[in-house]
Amino acid sequence: MNTIPLPRADDAHTAERCDAARNRRLLLDAATLLVGERGVDAVTMEAVAARAGVGKGTVFRRFGSRGGLMQALLDHTEREFQEAFMTGPPPLGPGADPVDRLIAFGRARIALVEVQGELLRAAEASSSNRFDVPARAVTHTHIEALLRAADVGGDLPLVAHSLMASLEATLVLHQWRNLGYTLDRLADNWSDLVRRVATPPTTDGRTVL
Amino acid sequence: MNTIPLPRADDAHTAERCDAARNRRLLLDAATLLVGERGVDAVTMEAVAARAGVGKGTVFRRFGSRGGLMQALLDHTEREFQEAFMTGPPPLGPGADPVDRLIAFGRARIALVEVQGELLRAAEASSSNRFDVPARAVTHTHIEALLRAADVGGDLPLVAHSLMASLEATLVLHQWRNLGYTLDRLADNWSDLVRRVATPPTTDGRTVL
Repeated sequence: MNTIPLPRADDAHTAERCDAARNRRLLLDAATLLVGERGVDAVTMEAVAARAGVGKGTVFRRFGSRGGLMQALLDHTEREFQEAFMTGPPPLGPGADPVDRLIAFGRARIALVEVQGELLRAAEASSSNRFDVPARAVTHTHIEALLRAADVGGDLPLVAHSLMASLEATLVLHQWRNLGYTLDRLADNWSDLVRRVATPPTTDGRTVL
Repeated sequence: MNTIPLPRADDAHTAERCDAARNRRLLLDAATLLVGERGVDAVTMEAVAARAGVGKGTVFRRFGSRGGLMQALLDHTEREFQEAFMTGPPPLGPGADPVDRLIAFGRARIALVEVQGELLRAAEASSSNRFDVPARAVTHTHIEALLRAADVGGDLPLVAHSLMASLEATLVLHQWRNLGYTLDRLADNWSDLVRRVATPPTTDGRTVL
């Protein structure tokens, strides 16, 4: 039997790719800080370059346009959030009670609005169908799985939609910025809502105390 | 004491206003039928005129532009819906149990999407802040009042927001048209959701059966 050589990584090429990934990360971190500090409108190619201490050309080479940067920034945020709820520490990640994980999920999502809200809202507004984006499918699968793990009854795919609807960035931003609710109060309402949804109604619709 | 003459209605003027109101109603009914039959894109000034059997000039004089017609059409739909839940027959209107009224409200709203969905979605998309429109404030007040009447606990203004979020026309249309859920199934999920929300969770978060 002949030995088939394993493909070897090209060391120079790998180093270059590592540099590229590190640069990309550096730029996205700078952009994330800018969103948090000055809002999404402040995130220009120039501002990101200045914040990251690189030339403007580097930002353009990496993302092509402001639209490309925004998309990358949102992907980056969503990916970090997905990592946190899929593989991070409990109660958001695996290991906690599913109802507690669901509560932690919403609380983390609401807290994220403080930094990423404008970005999330921009993404919702720019999509031709704001319900038809990959990140939403991942979230939906996660919430439905937690409801199932918690033995919640009902039409779980639709219960998951209903719960997700109250976490939409556009709604949370409106409640927080326009109506003056604190993010803590919104998070407490989420916790309460999840506990109610996780408790099936009694057959006569009345409370057993 | 001198007799102060009561202001008298100008009969000719009143008749003219009645005609105007009747014409307006006729045109809006024609436009509503068109939306239901052929979707919101089919609602042009010409099509409405043809459907109502009047000249195109009449439609332009009444509404100014297609945008004006759309706004009037949405106001008309919302007004009819508001009348139904505020003063119409139970269970949507007064006289029924508040939880039953809340269930009827959502079911009627979901059914409305079949005819008015595209219009409602267009209105949601065109508003600079889709949460900041008068019709939404009326709905919110109504839902919060029903929750209060049903002795539901929790942060009622926010519970009302959460419930309303799952009735948004954009979401319901996505569930129905893109995901293939029937409107009946969406309505059943709403009923179930309301019953759960109206039942407070037990203190230890577990179900008492």
